[in-house]
This record gives sequence, structure tokens and C-alpha cells, in this order.
Amino acid sequence: MLGKIFYPESIAVIGASTDPNKTGHIIFKNILHGFKGAVYPVNPKAGEILGVKAYPSILDVPAGSVDLAVIIIPAKFVEQALLECSKKNVKGAVVISGGFAEAGNEQMQASLVATGRKLGIRIIGPNCQGFNNPHAGVCASWPYVGAKGKMAVVSQSGTVGATIECWAADEGLGISKFVSLGNRCDIDEAELIEFFSRDETVSTIALYVESIKDGKKFMDSVRGSGKPVVVLKSGRSEYGARAAASHTRSLAGRDEIYGAAFRKAGAIRVDSIEEMYDVSKLLAYGPPVRENGILIITSSGGCGILAADLVKKAGLELAPLGEEVKKKLAGLLPGHCILSNPLDLTGDTDAARYETVLRETSAPSLVIFGDPIPGAAEVAEKFKGRIIVCYLGGGEIEQSEKRKMHSLGIPVLPTPERAVVALGKLVNYNNHPKR
Amino acid sequence: MLGKIFYPESIAVIGASTDPNKTGHIIFKNILHGFKGAVYPVNPKAGEILGVKAYPSILDVPAGSVDLAVIIIPAKFVEQALLECSKKNVKGAVVISGGFAEAGNEQMQASLVATGRKLGIRIIGPNCQGFNNPHAGVCASWPYVGAKGKMAVVSQSGTVGATIECWAADEGLGISKFVSLGNRCDIDEAELIEFFSRDETVSTIALYVESIKDGKKFMDSVRGSGKPVVVLKSGRSEYGARAAASHTRSLAGRDEIYGAAFRKAGAIRVDSIEEMYDVSKLLAYGPPVRENGILIITSSGGCGILAADLVKKAGLELAPLGEEVKKKLAGLLPGHCILSNPLDLTGDTDAARYETVLRETSAPSLVIFGDPIPGAAEVAEKFKGRIIVCYLGGGEIEQSEKRKMHSLGIPVLPTPERAVVALGKLVNYNNHPKR
Repeated sequence: MLGKIFYPESIAVIGASTDPNKTGHIIFKNILHGFKGAVYPVNPKAGEILGVKAYPSILDVPAGSVDLAVIIIPAKFVEQALLECSKKNVKGAVVISGGFAEAGNEQMQASLVATGRKLGIRIIGPNCQGFNNPHAGVCASWPYVGAKGKMAVVSQSGTVGATIECWAADEGLGISKFVSLGNRCDIDEAELIEFFSRDETVSTIALYVESIKDGKKFMDSVRGSGKPVVVLKSGRSEYGARAAASHTRSLAGRDEIYGAAFRKAGAIRVDSIEEMYDVSKLLAYGPPVRENGILIITSSGGCGILAADLVKKAGLELAPLGEEVKKKLAGLLPGHCILSNPLDLTGDTDAARYETVLRETSAPSLVIFGDPIPGAAEVAEKFKGRIIVCYLGGGEIEQSEKRKMHSLGIPVLPTPERAVVALGKLVNYNNHPKR
Repeated sequence: MLGKIFYPESIAVIGASTDPNKTGHIIFKNILHGFKGAVYPVNPKAGEILGVKAYPSILDVPAGSVDLAVIIIPAKFVEQALLECSKKNVKGAVVISGGFAEAGNEQMQASLVATGRKLGIRIIGPNCQGFNNPHAGVCASWPYVGAKGKMAVVSQSGTVGATIECWAADEGLGISKFVSLGNRCDIDEAELIEFFSRDETVSTIALYVESIKDGKKFMDSVRGSGKPVVVLKSGRSEYGARAAASHTRSLAGRDEIYGAAFRKAGAIRVDSIEEMYDVSKLLAYGPPVRENGILIITSSGGCGILAADLVKKAGLELAPLGEEVKKKLAGLLPGHCILSNPLDLTGDTDAARYETVLRETSAPSLVIFGDPIPGAAEVAEKFKGRIIVCYLGGGEIEQSEKRKMHSLGIPVLPTPERAVVALGKLVNYNNHPKR
């Protein structure tokens, strides 16, 4: 049934506004921007909004049924709106409005849930930043992100999710889904993990939470999902836990217990928003590396060392470069290249040297391009099944090569440190006993 | 005397090339791009390069003296070139060419150093990526970065330095200097720290090294510098140290010894390229915060929690929000704002709410904008003496507000985690016993 929410044929925006600064305007505009189906703005005072005829109530909408309602009206009117929605066969409601449990109005929220259940209307939120599904052209959220990608993001923080969306859009990767959980009065992270496990546009599920709503259900959803679930859980320190308690009124719980549960279920825990993004990106687009012995190939000695420094910490090893291979490479590469691991092609390298090394070796490789290096993407493509790429210090050529790699489905990490940490998590995930 | 290198009136590019793929072409082009003084390409086979008359030797250059020579010719010819340079009163040479000590040719390098010393020509390199000084319009390096900023970067890795340059340019901050040390046969990090301490375009010195060339000289330079020195030292782990040994043939030394020395001298140690950038940026552009009790003001509860989680670890505390202030704010802000620390203005906030809080409080503040929020820059400017800003999840408005803040000299960090870590280092630096 979540299908009608994420892939609706028609949408009512209850509380669509003519004021460009209002959330009710921004969301309506964002939906209009990409959605091909029918959109009905509902606003008793507006004749039309952005050129679309507005209706005083959803009951006035000409269609007999509407799949999805996005609701941005004061909290006290939301339940009534839901009752009207049911007359139009609405299957799901995204309640953006705040003023419920997070504001101390637990009773109002409980009543909303009960009504939704009675009417058969599933609810995202309330007090949330909506959702985005570029694959259905529905950005019922903000900012507008329309690029289609493979990562799903489920987040108790609208901003954390939006940040991942923005980065993915900026990098030309796009997003598969973004869901802001808000107070998650009905639909929770476990149900979304389950649903996205069956959605073929989703390759990886990234989750930001301050607490897990239902531990057992969550564990089952992660275990049952054939897809990687990357978790950023905040409220880990005393200060953080206290802040989490006032934010979502959920007890953060002891961090070690969460850690153990994540490990047991096979979720991948990460420590920051950037790591959440890197690891999701690598799992969604990167190669299915299992060996933990890696080869570092670099044009920058310094970046090779920075990468090597973190290899053990990331649970990896440096694969030895065999004497046979060394001898062969010595005949193929200029004498000043350092035939070791990291294998340093030095600053005057071109893309061809990378190709030579990759052809003569077989270990999963971290390939660091630390200079402009035109043609890097073409070489990377040939070995995409076993390499991960880090590109930095290359100015405009780096930017265009990176875009090219992303369009070829090759994930590019921005620094050697972030690349090694993410690769460690990838390898660790692929070696989980359940896989 | 380094003044003639970094602020030359004329430059000879020995080994300037007509082939657009050659380093000798790229560097010549980059110098030509921004330099207002005379530039002489030296190449025995070219009539002109990029429309500039070329000379077979520096001896043929019409001017009686040339301040700086940038040398990109095979190693074995470099010493001879230096001898010719001295006839034109050259004061400094940047030797890009590799093939010296790093390739096992220690003797050739020692001879170059001796000749330079005899002739009174100071040397940067060899085996380096040159230098960049946008304040003098001299980008004798690659990629081209012309934006003038306040951070100096001295790096044993060309790529690490270029990466900082690229980020700073992308963010509209620019750079003051970039120097690639290469084999640092003559000019080393200590001398550059000393020189940049007296250069008024430099506010912060960021240093990447695999080893320190002369411990005592380095310690003295850091102690004597009135400016912050941020150090990223690699080769910390066994794998990393081994890689460092093959890269620059320098022994990395025990990491704890380096750590203790950095602390004693008052240098700020960082753990990654990103941290090197963040901390330098904050020290160059941020407020001189000393108090370690901070207030977190956020539109995103989640980001507030992620920040709070790292506060203690970063050596900071959360400043208590007094009852008086709380009472006052309760009368000025909507009821759903969470008057605590983090102070959560919630997702529907505008810039005005931030202004209200900043006006009524006095603690140094981490201000997190986690939504588009137009007008953020104007508010930030009013309180720039005591805030650091983090901006994320805001799409296009974030991008333009961030640019605006950077043009106003307000540094913006990309995530709450990176902001707190960098702020911790800033406060720690400002509380060093020597300051």
C-alpha cells in the first residue's frame, strides 16, 4: 500500500499557498515541477496557485479518487482533513504540519493515528519534511531535487536527508527516495526498509535516526532486506542524548546496545553525515569487493600515504605486489614510478599508466587520481568491477572527469581518508556471515 | 630574499613547451594567465609560445636581470641552467623537474644545492609542483587558481596542497600561497613559515608533511610565528610510515614524538585533508573564540544532536542557557522552538529567529542553517565576531548564502561534525599558554 504513496497517480496538496515563502507554496511548486499526474491544490481562499485551479476542499476536487494527500495546515485541522480525504479514497497522507507529539500534543497525534487506521489511510509524519521520489517525479519536500539515483534515504532529520539529496544531486548521482520520518506516528523506518527492499530503483538504504521505534521490527526489516542498510544513529554522547530527548522526545538508549543490535542485524553503522553518504554511494554504485587485501594506485605519493595510514584501522590490508608483477611493471612503466603498495605513478602520470597497472594486477584497488589527468574516466570504466576511485587536486579536469565517472556508474570519493574508510565498510558488509 | 621568489618582477620559464599536454606548457600558461610583469619562455626549439617570443637560453633574454626562474627540464640539465640563471641575477629557482634524490640521484641533488648556494640562488624543489601566489599573480603551478585568499599552504605533497587550493577557490575564498616542497633540497617548511609570518596577506599557515626536515628550526619557526600553523603529518601507522619512506625517502619517525613536538611548539595537529582545510579556514576567517562553552543554534534538531554528540570530544562544553534568557526568548520566539542548548528553532524558521537568539545571548555560537533560509548571511554578518556557521541541506539558496558569507569573510563549514571538530581546535589554539 505504500506504493500508492511513493508512486501516486494523483496528488492533493492540502494547504497549498499563494505565498512563495510558505512551505505550502514551496512543496506545491516542487510537486508541480516534476509530476506528470494530476495535482490538486486545496486552499479555500485561492482561485488558482501557479496557474492551477485551486479547490476550497479536497471534496471539491473533480476526480473521484486521489491517491496521495500532502497536508500543510495547522495541526488542529489535520484530522478533519483526513476524514475528507477518505471520501476521495486517499491511500496515504504526508503530514508536514508540526504541533503534534513534538509540541506536547500527544493526544492530538494519537487521535490522528487512530483516525488514519480506521480510514485505511497511511501516514508519513507529522512534523516532517515530506518525501521525494524522483523516479515518480514526486518531490513532496524541499529543496527540489529531481535527479534519479539509486540511494534511498530515510531520516528522522529532514536536514540530514536533504543534505544527502543535495550532495547526490550536485555530484550528478541523484537519489532514489528521500523520506523524512518526522514524528513517525504511523509509517516507520522498518516499514520503509521493507518497502524499499522490494523497490527495484533502490540499491542502498541510508538511515538517520535518533532512536529506533520498534527494535524487533527494525531488526527483522534489516535482516530481511537483501539490500545494505547504512545507519547513522545520533544521541551517542551525554550531550547528544540529552539533545535527542528534547528533539524527538525519544530516549536515545545506551549506545552500545544500539551498536550490538546493528551489528547483529547486519546494518552498517557510520559516524557522520559524510560517512553515511560515502558508504551509501559506494554500496549503491561500487563494486562488490570482498577481499580485504587492497592495492593503492596513486599519482600522489602523499595521498597514497594518507590512504595507507588508515588501511588497518578500516579493517583492510595492503595486498603484496608480487615479484613477478613488479618485474613486469618495471618493464612497462617509467623508472621513477615506485613499484610498491601504494604504487606511486608519480605526478607526471597519464591515464595510460593506470591502465597498465590495472591490467597487470588483480587485487581490488583504490585508484587515486591526484592531478588533472585527462582520460581517467575511460580507464576507470574498464576496471569498474574492482576499483574504487578517489579524485582530488585536479581542478576543472577533475570536475569533468568526476561527472563522467558518475554518469558511468563509478563512484568517486573526495579524499583518500574518506575513500579508505568507506571501502573498509564496503568490504566488511560483503563479508557479513549472512552474505 | 624569498620575497623575490614570491613577489617577482620578472620570470623566466626554462623548459616552457609548445605541447599543451606538457607540464612546461601548463605552468607557462598559468603564469601568463595572471602575471603582470615580464615572462620569458626559454626553449631552444620554439620561436614563440602562446604568442610570446621564446629564447634559446636565459642568456638570450633581453632584460639584464630576471628575478625568478621556473625550471622544467630533465634533471641532468638543471645545474647548468642554474649557472646561466646567475648571469641574469636570478634570485630564486623553482625546480619542477624530478629525477634527483627521490630517484636515487642524491649526488646530483647535492651538487645542485652546492651550486645554488655558491651562486646565491635559493631553490624550491626539485621534484615539486611549484608555487602559487595569487597576490602577485604568479601561478607557477597547476591547476590554475587565481583567487586571492588568506590561507598559505606548504605541502610535501603537490596534490594535498592543490586540493586545498581547489576547495578554497570553489568556495570563493581563494588562497594566499601554495608551495609544493618536493625534495626541499634548500627552502624548507621552517623557512617558509618564517617568511609567511611576515607576509601580511597570510593569516594561517597549513602544512602537510611526511617528516620535518630540521626539528629545531621547525620548532623555532612555529614558536616565532604570530600566526597559527596547522599540521597534517602522515606516515603515522606502520603501513603509512613504510609508504612515506618510499615516497620521500624520509624516515617518518615515531608519531608520538611528532605529536609532542607539535603540541610544545603550539602547532595545531589535524587528522585529515578535510580537517586541515576546515581548521585553516576557521583560523584564517573565523572569530577569535576563546571560551570553550558554546551555544548551538539550529533549524535542524538532528544536526544539533550530531553537533552536541561531538562537543566534549572536541574539548568544548555546551554553555548553559540561563533562566532569564530562556524567559525572554520564550516571549520572542514561537512556542514550538526548543529553548535549550542546542537551541532548536525548528524547520520553519526564518533568519529573523536566529537574529533574535543571537541578540539575546552572548556565548560563542555554532549557528547551523539546515534549510534554505534566505537572509542567513545578513544575520550572520552582524554577529561574525562570535559565531561560526554550518550550512547544509539548503539547495540553491544554501549555495548563494554560503558564497555571500564567504565574501563577507564568514567561514561556512559543511557539516555539524566538521564544524564542531574545527571549532574545538580553534578554541584550543586560542587558549594555548603562549597566546
